Amino acid sequence: MRYELYYWPEIQGRGEFVRLALEEGGADYVDVARTRGVKAMTAVMERGVRSAYAPPILKAGRFTIAQTALILQFLGPRLGLCPRGEADRLWAHQLQLTVTDFVKEIHDTHHPISSALYYEDQKPAAKRYTEAFWRHRAPKMLGYFERVVAQSGGPYVFGRRVCYVDLSLFQIVAGLRYAFPKRMRRLERSLPRLAALHDRVARRPRIAAYLKSERRIPFNEWGIFRRYPELDS
Amino acid sequence: MRYELYYWPEIQGRGEFVRLALEEGGADYVDVARTRGVKAMTAVMERGVRSAYAPPILKAGRFTIAQTALILQFLGPRLGLCPRGEADRLWAHQLQLTVTDFVKEIHDTHHPISSALYYEDQKPAAKRYTEAFWRHRAPKMLGYFERVVAQSGGPYVFGRRVCYVDLSLFQIVAGLRYAFPKRMRRLERSLPRLAALHDRVARRPRIAAYLKSERRIPFNEWGIFRRYPELDS
Repeated sequence: MRYELYYWPEIQGRGEFVRLALEEGGADYVDVARTRGVKAMTAVMERGVRSAYAPPILKAGRFTIAQTALILQFLGPRLGLCPRGEADRLWAHQLQLTVTDFVKEIHDTHHPISSALYYEDQKPAAKRYTEAFWRHRAPKMLGYFERVVAQSGGPYVFGRRVCYVDLSLFQIVAGLRYAFPKRMRRLERSLPRLAALHDRVARRPRIAAYLKSERRIPFNEWGIFRRYPELDS
Repeated sequence: MRYELYYWPEIQGRGEFVRLALEEGGADYVDVARTRGVKAMTAVMERGVRSAYAPPILKAGRFTIAQTALILQFLGPRLGLCPRGEADRLWAHQLQLTVTDFVKEIHDTHHPISSALYYEDQKPAAKRYTEAFWRHRAPKMLGYFERVVAQSGGPYVFGRRVCYVDLSLFQIVAGLRYAFPKRMRRLERSLPRLAALHDRVARRPRIAAYLKSERRIPFNEWGIFRRYPELDS
């Protein structure tokens, strides 16, 4: 099975959670917009029926699906990135949906008012949002996942076998370290298991090879995780 | 099967999307916090392993699951509120996840900076967010669902058979009419199919009976949809 991923070619964004799963799963896939251009992506979005609201979009044989967490739920068992029991699969998806919620909140640190406005046009609101985010939301969300890993026995959310949720948590930790190096360093003192999970995922052979490759788009100031020093003090 | 729903007892909130499905599906269920108090809910949230990040939470036999869209994905086939084919079920969940994204954006019209602050402490930001929301986001999101219904042939997202997504879209239209009567009246001129879907769902016997019952908590100023006249002009 050759998978086709449709996502913006210049950013990690939400597509990165899918890329990490395809890479760790050793999938045969094409990152379509990066090889054939953005028009190939918008064409899929604009086709007549059952078109997606937004990318990422995955084509897998007769299926074309969107929404990051759904794509991962679909790929999980197919790529061996999820336990097979129903209770475990529900739990994995539940965790991934909580990751989804968190990603939106992270994005809003630089765009609390509107994605249609530049960051520069919402800086005071971004500053205030970010303060509250690091006071309330980041400790609560990351603390939750820290407990999840503690309860599984670690190093991953299901214990010793890696799951697609772990790849997403790796990305969250890596992204927050990039965007908020000072704040994250402080908070990570209370998140030893998440930090260990991050390092463990980064050392997995396929992920390590991917991170060193050109397929991994560097963090930048167009994605979810943006380094604005004025938000990190 | 007797289902147990755990959600805040004073608001419709995200729990309402689950309540509507349980009601339309004729499920035997208990709205636990409304009958036994909030402590019964927090007890489930604080139990040792695999605890939810936040309500709504559904107990169904040996399963305890959270995240609104996941609960609906779980209930859909069990309550006859979703087609059985895999492509259809993926599509239903994909739509529901887009509803989830939209619900968060609606919530943020009154709380763009932080849920830890009062609305009164973020009024200028709320005003600005709400302007952008009605200029960009609401037309785009609701226009998307309008097209989905048009392409299915209507009146529902799968054509003639109701699905849990329709119940959620009913709730979105009802909630926006409550919170933003003026703005929604204007926008609805371009959303005839969503308006018809709303009316059709409201007339379904089980939903009609539910809406008239005491089980339906009225809209109020603690939930997702809040009527602040200064945001509606």
